Amino acid sequence: MNKGTLIKEGKAKRLYNTDQPEYVWVEYMDQATALNGKRKERVVGKGPLNNQIDCLLFTMLQRNGIQTDFVKQLSANEQLNKVVTIIPLEVVVRNAASGSFQEKFAVPYLEKLPQPVVEYFYKSDELDDPVINTSQALALGIIQPGESETLQQRALQINKLLQARFAKANLQLVDFKVEFGKTTSDEIILADEISPDSCRLVDIDSQKSFDKDVFRKRTGQLVDVYQEVLQRLIDSQEDVDVSR
Amino acid sequence: MNKGTLIKEGKAKRLYNTDQPEYVWVEYMDQATALNGKRKERVVGKGPLNNQIDCLLFTMLQRNGIQTDFVKQLSANEQLNKVVTIIPLEVVVRNAASGSFQEKFAVPYLEKLPQPVVEYFYKSDELDDPVINTSQALALGIIQPGESETLQQRALQINKLLQARFAKANLQLVDFKVEFGKTTSDEIILADEISPDSCRLVDIDSQKSFDKDVFRKRTGQLVDVYQEVLQRLIDSQEDVDVSR
Ligand SMILES: Nc1ncnc2c1ncn2[C@@H]1O[C@H](COP(=O)(O)OP(=O)(O)O)[C@@H](O)[C@H]1O
Ligand SMILES: Nc1ncnc2c1ncn2[C@@H]1O[C@H](COP(=O)(O)OP(=O)(O)O)[C@@H](O)[C@H]1O
Ligand SMILES: [Mg+2]
Ligand SMILES: [Mg+2]
Repeated sequence: MNKGTLIKEGKAKRLYNTDQPEYVWVEYMDQATALNGKRKERVVGKGPLNNQIDCLLFTMLQRNGIQTDFVKQLSANEQLNKVVTIIPLEVVVRNAASGSFQEKFAVPYLEKLPQPVVEYFYKSDELDDPVINTSQALALGIIQPGESETLQQRALQINKLLQARFAKANLQLVDFKVEFGKTTSDEIILADEISPDSCRLVDIDSQKSFDKDVFRKRTGQLVDVYQEVLQRLIDSQEDVDVSR
Repeated sequence: MNKGTLIKEGKAKRLYNTDQPEYVWVEYMDQATALNGKRKERVVGKGPLNNQIDCLLFTMLQRNGIQTDFVKQLSANEQLNKVVTIIPLEVVVRNAASGSFQEKFAVPYLEKLPQPVVEYFYKSDELDDPVINTSQALALGIIQPGESETLQQRALQINKLLQARFAKANLQLVDFKVEFGKTTSDEIILADEISPDSCRLVDIDSQKSFDKDVFRKRTGQLVDVYQEVLQRLIDSQEDVDVSR
């Protein structure tokens, strides 16, 4: 399979055609952004780290019955994905208070929520990714009847699996964002990426941040922190993985 | 029945005890507010107008099978209500784009929505009434499982009845806000008020505003406009009402 022409360049990844129309060649870039792209910096080493973390997590999810766009890792900073039509919703799951939830509802930082919260943000650069609810997304034609229930259920299943996986690496999954896409046969599958760019992770003992918050708040070196996340995930792999 | 002590004073109404604990004596005030109460003005005549409009609409809803807190009109600016524990959610229904929806999603003013939109705002003066979704309201203990479905279904039924009623008065119901409460027997019923304070109404032909937007945007005399809403509602009453 060959890397074809560039189809799309986002804030973190470049997508290329391949010679097979059902696949997309994804390159993770050495670039970090904040404030919806208004702050943008080159960060050497970030692309390979996120690519490897993403490959590891999508493989785990796939093995646990979650359908995803992941096909295989191609290089340190590249992977092959099934091409999907992205549903333009950032689906956020929260297990504890942080970020906009903390501010909006005056809940103390890291206070555990009695049940996970699911939120949607409409992926729209022009509108600055506004919060959206199911009813609004239906009226705007972003989703079809029944799809919101599927997205929420799927996001909560992924949450359980990710929580357990990160716990093995002594990391608490505070919240995360995922994107879903539709295949040509109209199935909704997990797509895009899961990495410290899209998760809030804190060390279970020290509550130190192990995610993009160190870049957002300028409290640490992004690459060092992401490197430790990858290392902890590798060190905590089950024996079954090692023996393959 | 006697008017007892003041229990609660809000931005538009005063609630008093009566000698029967299951009832509350509600006085509609001559006061208009905007920007969540930051702008507040005395508007002579507003109390009686909203009280009469509310009595007329709640009576109509009650006759059409919607359970409400309305008992009876007591005077020009007073009515008797069943006391409820208010669920602190402003339940908004939209039939066409206006206000925050118009701005947030860049939909043109008064563009018809393909299906009604339901939104929740968390009634909290300290938090400035933030947008909230079902999942957040559940996690914060504001509603119990299943209640969001009840609120949405009820709000949409009320929408249909109000749309039809206002249409007879040549007014288009663009959007409105309602509040629900729980009775001592844990039933969810419509409570609070429905008036041009809480509805966006435009003349079907001229699209002129007949609601609090004339006060918010300082484009007209609130009392004149509310007076016309009341008059149009009275003039368009069914014969069956007149004959009672
Ligand atoms: N499997 C896929 N098929 C098609 N598009 C995808 C797939 N996975 C991710 N995308 C999209 O690729 C684009 C580039 O990703 P990214 O750089 O993360 O963008 P963004 O700036 O939106 O965060 C995004 O629009 C994302 O939704
Ligand atoms: N039947 C009822 N029983 C108890 N409280 C009610 C009832 N109807 C309305 N309320 C509450 O009475 C208060 C006063 O009303 P209002 O002046 O409209 O207040 P606000 O400033 O919140 O708009 C509000 O908190 C409202 O939710
Ligand atoms: Mg992205
Ligand atoms: Mg009110």
